[in-house]
Amino acid sequence: MFQNFDDLSDPSCGAPHAALLRAELKRLGLDGFLIPRADAHQGEYVPPHDCRLQWLTGFTGSAGMAAVLGEDAAVFVDGRYTIQVREQVDMDVFPAQHLITEPVTEWLVARLKPGQKLGIDAMLHTVREVRRLREICKEAGAELVTLEDNPVDAVWADRPEPPVGQVMLYPTELAGRGSEDKIAEIQKAIQDKKADACVLTQPDSIAWLFNIRGSDVTHTPLPLSFATVPAEGKPSLYIDGRKLSNSVRDALADLTEISEPADFQGGLKTLGTEGKKVIIDPSLAGIGIAEAITDAGGTLVEASDPVLLPKAVKNEVELNGARKAHVRDAAAYIAFLCWFDEEVAKVELDEIGAAEKLEEFRAATGELKDISFDTISGAGPNGAICHYRVSRTSNLKIPQDKPFLIDSGAQYIDGTTDITRTLAVGTVSEEMKKHYTLVLKGHIAISTAKFPEGTTGAQLDTLARIDLWKAGLDFDHGTGHGVGTYLGVHEGPQRIAKTGHVPLKPGMILSNEPGYYPAGEYGIRLENLEIVTAPKDIPGGERPMLGFETITLVPFDRRLIVGGMLASDERSWLNRYHQRVRSEIGPLLAAKDRIWLEQATEEL
Amino acid sequence: MFQNFDDLSDPSCGAPHAALLRAELKRLGLDGFLIPRADAHQGEYVPPHDCRLQWLTGFTGSAGMAAVLGEDAAVFVDGRYTIQVREQVDMDVFPAQHLITEPVTEWLVARLKPGQKLGIDAMLHTVREVRRLREICKEAGAELVTLEDNPVDAVWADRPEPPVGQVMLYPTELAGRGSEDKIAEIQKAIQDKKADACVLTQPDSIAWLFNIRGSDVTHTPLPLSFATVPAEGKPSLYIDGRKLSNSVRDALADLTEISEPADFQGGLKTLGTEGKKVIIDPSLAGIGIAEAITDAGGTLVEASDPVLLPKAVKNEVELNGARKAHVRDAAAYIAFLCWFDEEVAKVELDEIGAAEKLEEFRAATGELKDISFDTISGAGPNGAICHYRVSRTSNLKIPQDKPFLIDSGAQYIDGTTDITRTLAVGTVSEEMKKHYTLVLKGHIAISTAKFPEGTTGAQLDTLARIDLWKAGLDFDHGTGHGVGTYLGVHEGPQRIAKTGHVPLKPGMILSNEPGYYPAGEYGIRLENLEIVTAPKDIPGGERPMLGFETITLVPFDRRLIVGGMLASDERSWLNRYHQRVRSEIGPLLAAKDRIWLEQATEEL
Repeated sequence: MFQNFDDLSDPSCGAPHAALLRAELKRLGLDGFLIPRADAHQGEYVPPHDCRLQWLTGFTGSAGMAAVLGEDAAVFVDGRYTIQVREQVDMDVFPAQHLITEPVTEWLVARLKPGQKLGIDAMLHTVREVRRLREICKEAGAELVTLEDNPVDAVWADRPEPPVGQVMLYPTELAGRGSEDKIAEIQKAIQDKKADACVLTQPDSIAWLFNIRGSDVTHTPLPLSFATVPAEGKPSLYIDGRKLSNSVRDALADLTEISEPADFQGGLKTLGTEGKKVIIDPSLAGIGIAEAITDAGGTLVEASDPVLLPKAVKNEVELNGARKAHVRDAAAYIAFLCWFDEEVAKVELDEIGAAEKLEEFRAATGELKDISFDTISGAGPNGAICHYRVSRTSNLKIPQDKPFLIDSGAQYIDGTTDITRTLAVGTVSEEMKKHYTLVLKGHIAISTAKFPEGTTGAQLDTLARIDLWKAGLDFDHGTGHGVGTYLGVHEGPQRIAKTGHVPLKPGMILSNEPGYYPAGEYGIRLENLEIVTAPKDIPGGERPMLGFETITLVPFDRRLIVGGMLASDERSWLNRYHQRVRSEIGPLLAAKDRIWLEQATEEL
Repeated sequence: MFQNFDDLSDPSCGAPHAALLRAELKRLGLDGFLIPRADAHQGEYVPPHDCRLQWLTGFTGSAGMAAVLGEDAAVFVDGRYTIQVREQVDMDVFPAQHLITEPVTEWLVARLKPGQKLGIDAMLHTVREVRRLREICKEAGAELVTLEDNPVDAVWADRPEPPVGQVMLYPTELAGRGSEDKIAEIQKAIQDKKADACVLTQPDSIAWLFNIRGSDVTHTPLPLSFATVPAEGKPSLYIDGRKLSNSVRDALADLTEISEPADFQGGLKTLGTEGKKVIIDPSLAGIGIAEAITDAGGTLVEASDPVLLPKAVKNEVELNGARKAHVRDAAAYIAFLCWFDEEVAKVELDEIGAAEKLEEFRAATGELKDISFDTISGAGPNGAICHYRVSRTSNLKIPQDKPFLIDSGAQYIDGTTDITRTLAVGTVSEEMKKHYTLVLKGHIAISTAKFPEGTTGAQLDTLARIDLWKAGLDFDHGTGHGVGTYLGVHEGPQRIAKTGHVPLKPGMILSNEPGYYPAGEYGIRLENLEIVTAPKDIPGGERPMLGFETITLVPFDRRLIVGGMLASDERSWLNRYHQRVRSEIGPLLAAKDRIWLEQATEEL
């Protein structure tokens, strides 16, 4: 099993660990310290070695920060984690604050005293973040001290070792392009910016560039590493040599110099000493990277990680891989749905049982490399917690007469999947059906959208919400995120959200997942993945329009749809989609599952 | 008549005026000069005294710029004016460039030579603009020279005098708030920013703040002026004394110090000398204002003009004024529509005739202070020119069998109106009806939208376009702009457009005007004004939602609607709207017009 359901932590660690840290800060002459959830790669998954926030507070969410001063401390989390944080963290030691509305900056301004020293780990805070923290400290008359060694590490007994997951070469037959070709594209981008080099801190950028995959963190095949790419000549890859077999090392050596992570700072200093103009992404690179370059005499060009956009725009080989992965995933998923319908009626099924069985069906394909994230298996009120992770303690029997939400995905070698379905259990109320149908209308609005070149995800986001808004409802997350090719299930820069200001380009893969979550009752979310399609002429039109190709092929639960609420074009979209599921996935199913599918996709 | 139809200029001025300017530049030791359309207030209307771009090139559009170098010159206009500029400007002397896709900055970078001096008028270019121009000059190795005197003025024979339109006091019964109260609000905003003062350069900000109106430019009752507001104490108003009657001067003297515009620079220097922190809006204030303050020792706080938002959010008295103005305007407009239907059938009506008659009906209310902009009266292909201004030369007979577009508005003492209708003339084709109906669907989508607090116009804009996009069509302007209270018919910061990133607030007035323009054939635009309504609970919902109250009350042309393309809720919106027009405006009409209205608003 790739997923476990252990209780990850308990609040009792907060008091003793805060005391240990405070003693160390005193020894270092510091009055305070910030402990972000991030590691030096600012990624979604952090290896146990770097889970300092969890060690200190118990909090295991995917974003957050703690601040520790002499007397005061707090933990800052966003809207997704306001419930979870209260279960995992000792609120007497680390009162919870809202990351956005009660930000750490305001908290610090109100507490820092003139002359005090606030420490941060130079690799864990981005250039942009530090800019803001410096302002804050200046306002309070305090000093921001950037540290090379993290005080948490000094007092963390039994700290796990850094991961040394083996690196594999990702074949061109799946990547669609050789690494030399990709490096040349990035070097052209560096030259276009009149820079001499760029620094890459995102492991998935590095994985894409060198056509490698790894296994350092859960659920995402990333090799943790850093790299620098010069405008001309060989890049440098900084990676723990234990991760490289001889054959992988040999293949990589044709593309890049290979050094240990400990040499990374030295490499940056050399760029500085040579007076190079170096591109760094101020939202991704730690201040320690920027200062290593500038202190040695280099200059910085602040720009987005130049790999982000080329990686986001998949080539035809990658898209075909994604399509194949989704067909495989759909067959396993439909077998799960058929099993679920039978099993849930027996009234014994719980959230863990459902998640385990779904993974089992995926594993039975023989192709499952990992799940792409911990399955969100949310029965009743747990479904209303957007980023719920089921544990032995939280595990609920799936109640009759409520929708059941399950959000999951798989990592296959040819593609990453991510799908959410909300399923009728027992007899569902008219109100539940109304809510489901409103969410479905938003989902269909995105799926059927056409839009001109240059349109951003922010411009489309409202289409997923307007029917909910008209009913006085909304959901507090974005409508869609980018998805990688056997890489991160969340990737930028594309998003369908208020904040998605990057134009959508043909070949990008995005999720389409509106929802609705009546707190304490149940959750509804409907998610497919969509490929952005090339501009196409429309009969009678004059401007070619982009659109979406849906690659997730699993039926929506007809028992939760109020047919009368669908416009005729929405209804015909649904029927066409179900027809496509039947014809593309049906032939891959066992007889029993195929019969289930026939019924589930009957014309509405 | 407030509108005239004279041909405003002809291209022949370009060659001799460019020669005059080049000689003057040579005398001043300059290698180039920029001539923006803007005056020092960056407003939409510029008095003839400041129409330097028109004098130089002949171009009369509301935005643009010319650049003149020793050998080379060009005029830069946006997409609205690509046709007009070719008719008004000598393309041999000033080739036209696209302001956005071929910007003046790129043009300069390609042409400026190291050591050259590029001049600009320090009051006509904003702080933000100059920042970009300085980068450009640096890149080219050239020098940017800011001038106090404009070289155009030195060679402009017969330059018109500056306007001295009389200022009137705008009564509290219409403004809804006294000026003291408004000044106190702005002073609070200045204190909140920890600043000592702010500079106001927008005449409509000043008009709102002091509850005054003027008559310096066409169609907008603005008194051209500058002001500074200290965090405490009396503001200073810099205005030509000839505009003030004794009684107005006495009333204003209670609120503000009054000085001549010539003293403005001195006032700014004094702020600087006293070491004040002064708020300026970098997108509105000329670089000359910023430098007057900083050169004298002051510091700048860059922030939006603090009047913009309070002015945009109308109070209940202003909203009632707007409602009354729109009822009055609708009655005049419907009389025009009834007349038009009869008259156009006689085949002799032309664009000017229609515009004149519409103004006549409005004037007959006895309340018309001005039209709010030159009526866009666009027959056939002229309708496809979004910002068409009809002149004696361009004037077309209104063709049978094409839609006729007319976009117009009125200035009444209690409110400013802006309405566009597209009218069936003769027998219109099924395709025309299809286009009209698609635009109407977009209009209805905005009008019926509900949205949570914090939603911006950018988030709503797509609702007006999605049905057009699905048909492969689009329009190249924003969906809506803010509208003032007997002030500018275009005001910020609110917009419904890709670029509208300000949250919509209850009390804002916005236009809702999607369109479609098949080039060379006809134009369709449908425009009502809408008030943003306060958050309201929706039955069955859990979050209160904002929405729109439509205040324009004039029927849409049923002869252009394909009923089968409307969803049932769109159809019932239209029928309800027409019912409202009938019941609210019907009783105000002459018998003949009322009969016409009954037919025009029959249930669809």
